[in-house]
Amino acid sequence: MTRHLPPGLTEESFAEAIQAFRRVVGDKWVLTDEETQLPSYYDPFAIFEADHFAPSAVVKPSSVDEVRGVVAVANEYKVPLHPISIGKNLGFGGPAPRLPGAVVVDLKRMNRIIEVDDRLGYAVVEPGVSFIELDNYLRERNIPFWVDVPDLGWGSVLGNTLERGIGYTPYGDHYAVHCGMEVVLPDGDLVRTGMGAMPGSNTAYLYQYGFGPLYDGLFTQSNFGIVTKLGVWLLPKPAGCQAYMITLSKEEDLGQFIDILQPLRLNNTISNVSSLRSLLLDAAAVAPRSHYYTGDGPIPDSVAEKIKDELKIGYWNFYGAMYGTEASIREQWDLIRDAFSAVPSAKFYLAHEHDSPVLATRAKIMAAQPNLETAEILKWTDNCGHIDFAPMAPATGEHALWQYQTTRDLCREYGKDYMGNIIVGRREMHTIHLVMFDFTNPTDKERTYALIKRLIAESTKRGYGAYRGHPSIMDDLAATYSFNDNALLRLSQRIKDALDPNGILAPGKQGIWPARLRGQQF
Amino acid sequence: MTRHLPPGLTEESFAEAIQAFRRVVGDKWVLTDEETQLPSYYDPFAIFEADHFAPSAVVKPSSVDEVRGVVAVANEYKVPLHPISIGKNLGFGGPAPRLPGAVVVDLKRMNRIIEVDDRLGYAVVEPGVSFIELDNYLRERNIPFWVDVPDLGWGSVLGNTLERGIGYTPYGDHYAVHCGMEVVLPDGDLVRTGMGAMPGSNTAYLYQYGFGPLYDGLFTQSNFGIVTKLGVWLLPKPAGCQAYMITLSKEEDLGQFIDILQPLRLNNTISNVSSLRSLLLDAAAVAPRSHYYTGDGPIPDSVAEKIKDELKIGYWNFYGAMYGTEASIREQWDLIRDAFSAVPSAKFYLAHEHDSPVLATRAKIMAAQPNLETAEILKWTDNCGHIDFAPMAPATGEHALWQYQTTRDLCREYGKDYMGNIIVGRREMHTIHLVMFDFTNPTDKERTYALIKRLIAESTKRGYGAYRGHPSIMDDLAATYSFNDNALLRLSQRIKDALDPNGILAPGKQGIWPARLRGQQF
Repeated sequence: MTRHLPPGLTEESFAEAIQAFRRVVGDKWVLTDEETQLPSYYDPFAIFEADHFAPSAVVKPSSVDEVRGVVAVANEYKVPLHPISIGKNLGFGGPAPRLPGAVVVDLKRMNRIIEVDDRLGYAVVEPGVSFIELDNYLRERNIPFWVDVPDLGWGSVLGNTLERGIGYTPYGDHYAVHCGMEVVLPDGDLVRTGMGAMPGSNTAYLYQYGFGPLYDGLFTQSNFGIVTKLGVWLLPKPAGCQAYMITLSKEEDLGQFIDILQPLRLNNTISNVSSLRSLLLDAAAVAPRSHYYTGDGPIPDSVAEKIKDELKIGYWNFYGAMYGTEASIREQWDLIRDAFSAVPSAKFYLAHEHDSPVLATRAKIMAAQPNLETAEILKWTDNCGHIDFAPMAPATGEHALWQYQTTRDLCREYGKDYMGNIIVGRREMHTIHLVMFDFTNPTDKERTYALIKRLIAESTKRGYGAYRGHPSIMDDLAATYSFNDNALLRLSQRIKDALDPNGILAPGKQGIWPARLRGQQF
Repeated sequence: MTRHLPPGLTEESFAEAIQAFRRVVGDKWVLTDEETQLPSYYDPFAIFEADHFAPSAVVKPSSVDEVRGVVAVANEYKVPLHPISIGKNLGFGGPAPRLPGAVVVDLKRMNRIIEVDDRLGYAVVEPGVSFIELDNYLRERNIPFWVDVPDLGWGSVLGNTLERGIGYTPYGDHYAVHCGMEVVLPDGDLVRTGMGAMPGSNTAYLYQYGFGPLYDGLFTQSNFGIVTKLGVWLLPKPAGCQAYMITLSKEEDLGQFIDILQPLRLNNTISNVSSLRSLLLDAAAVAPRSHYYTGDGPIPDSVAEKIKDELKIGYWNFYGAMYGTEASIREQWDLIRDAFSAVPSAKFYLAHEHDSPVLATRAKIMAAQPNLETAEILKWTDNCGHIDFAPMAPATGEHALWQYQTTRDLCREYGKDYMGNIIVGRREMHTIHLVMFDFTNPTDKERTYALIKRLIAESTKRGYGAYRGHPSIMDDLAATYSFNDNALLRLSQRIKDALDPNGILAPGKQGIWPARLRGQQF
């Protein structure tokens, strides 16, 4: 393991900075041991060397004041900081900083659920609160509200929202259901956004917009501030919840299916963020790859057919949920079956009518029960990691088919299985392509990285932009948003320089570098 | 009429700037005549002298390139610009600039409906497109989507969204249903936000968030850019729409009513942005004040009782709409009547069951039919204007009663009638208090302005913040968001100075002044 020093610092100045951090947070909350402490802050699915995106140290403040103290030290010594909430974010870099040698600011100790309003339906959380913890809090107190949860429940509610992550109930768009932020700016100033900027405000967590410019978006997928509190709207617990699965045994039915689905999402007949998963992604949740196939190269179509039969699922498997009274759910189910009965290969199952473990997991998630079952797919191979390419697409069959066929063909060209998850909004889809690889195998990593670059290039040509990305491709993705000679990046850089003149906060995150590091390669 | 020159400019430098503007947009699109041309850009409801917030000139570009040209001239001569879309915004200053002597940039000529997608449901509009025009476009082509409309349909779709205005269908939160902006920055650079920053993007108007920091909010209620294009999501036309009114003949039933209403809004039983209007606001839509009362001072309770009887309405009148199939609407109506039957004085009317002209108007608006009928209230007195105080409040009965009682009592103290409109969201309410005044009467204006200042002071003490405000109170309102020694305003000023170093764009809007004018009084 190599220690990366932050650029521009000497061993001496770095040691001084570490001493200063220790004075702020206490000795034991500054981690510097590169054998025993720092590796747990590496990207668990490293696409380059394991320690490529490694921090030089980790600082663990316990309060907003300590965060401000850490930021003050960073400005004094020009130490780059990389704030994380809990540091999950699998497929997108985990806890690892974009800039090798940055000091991770681990906010897990700030884990208070500050307030829950059981009438108007919101929670106020610190960065260290996980979905599982917030859910437990609500259940233990019989609070009749749900917190929407993502695939894996161990992540931070605040961190997931800042990365604009998604879940699967009607409140699945986490940014859309946040309300109110407290933020430490790169110079240590402390702001509250929206109505929360009024002392004693009674609508800080009820009304999203405040008076004057709306800053919340500025602090998402960004390096302009460290968010220390977040308001989160909770979904009123529905009278009932019934999950279902629709399997499509023919892969080409994807297009027709999406074309029927989109208007139902738009008019709220299907009210939750639903997902359409490819065969092998679901197969991975059931058994390791070797159970299905031990040959070389991508799993052949003939084997895929057998997997389909064994698991009694389709090439595509759609997971939705219906909410409301029993009568309402019956009506919804009639409407849904009627609509999709036009798809020749569609088969319909309520949650209890099929023994698929994926359906069981999805049923929990769509009923806002956080869990870790989706991590089962990591048993696909030994040392299995994944890197995700996540382009947005219009929610039409034509676009779904283009994304699927292009990605599948490129995956095969690079010797990879296609594993896709299409998460369907009202007008758009997150088309998330998980590329699995062996994170101990340099050849496999090189090939995987080359594939991801190809996927970016091909999708960009057709106007599909990614909503999020791994540190290794952040600059590439930022460069695809190039209208008017990269005007958006220019705007980001001007704001970066104005708010963070010393360039200390998360340099390079989302392709935004501070002036002193701009144009260098890291 | 006095011509205000922009601060710092001489007659000579101003004349040069005007010549330069003429070269950009053509002679006839620069207006400078203070007798015949500029008065139509004054606030129609001037609370100070009629020409207090008067522009020094008006420039009318016809394209994005011309807007950029105008901005270039402004930077060269340090001429402050005040962009307007169509310039309605009644009660909040109309087209008038916050800084006396600013040059209004009137964008009405940019009135193209650039695109309407009749499948995924969005429109892309320029600033000069009104709600009425966009609605006409959709109806003429039988496009099965609605554009949500505000009280008055003549305003700009883009302008209303930027001021975070609201309408009354389920898409009533206009900022929430926008998607994608094109913005000319104060230095003339041109950015597209979100996915639109990718050349050839196919999700520019489908996915709101893009990659990296989200800038859209920065350009709302702000002076950081001139928005030249906006994507707007359209509501799928429902199977049916049925408006209704619930009248409360006892004013004190307000609290109980709101407490029953809020959970129904939150769980979507009542799916649209609904409103609860006070007696005199509705009376004003029917006849002038003199029809009801010709005495001095506020209308007495005894007269109010008579008005109630004459109009067959309540002290409070709630307007909602149900959407869907006939069967579904019948079910909704049962649920709604059951829920509110606990309110002793509640009476229930479907739209055709009562001849109230207000109900007829609200029925149109909740069915997305833009109109100008709400302007009837301006016949209340001769020379009738209004200034609006618009604090947000938690959607509970306790808060509704406090806002009502405090505002009513203060109105009476200042000799004014109470006219309130409570617009009920899922967790919060816009409590809009219209204070009517005679805009030709200096004594009335002074008294009205003093009342507004008192309302701000009293509401701020209790944590109620205004969501929007008239130019005459923008600095006061900005000052109420004072957490951490005005940290939010400090942030605004840093971004202002970074993006607009010459301080040319809408100085003072929402209390944000550029460095060169900060601390002065205008």
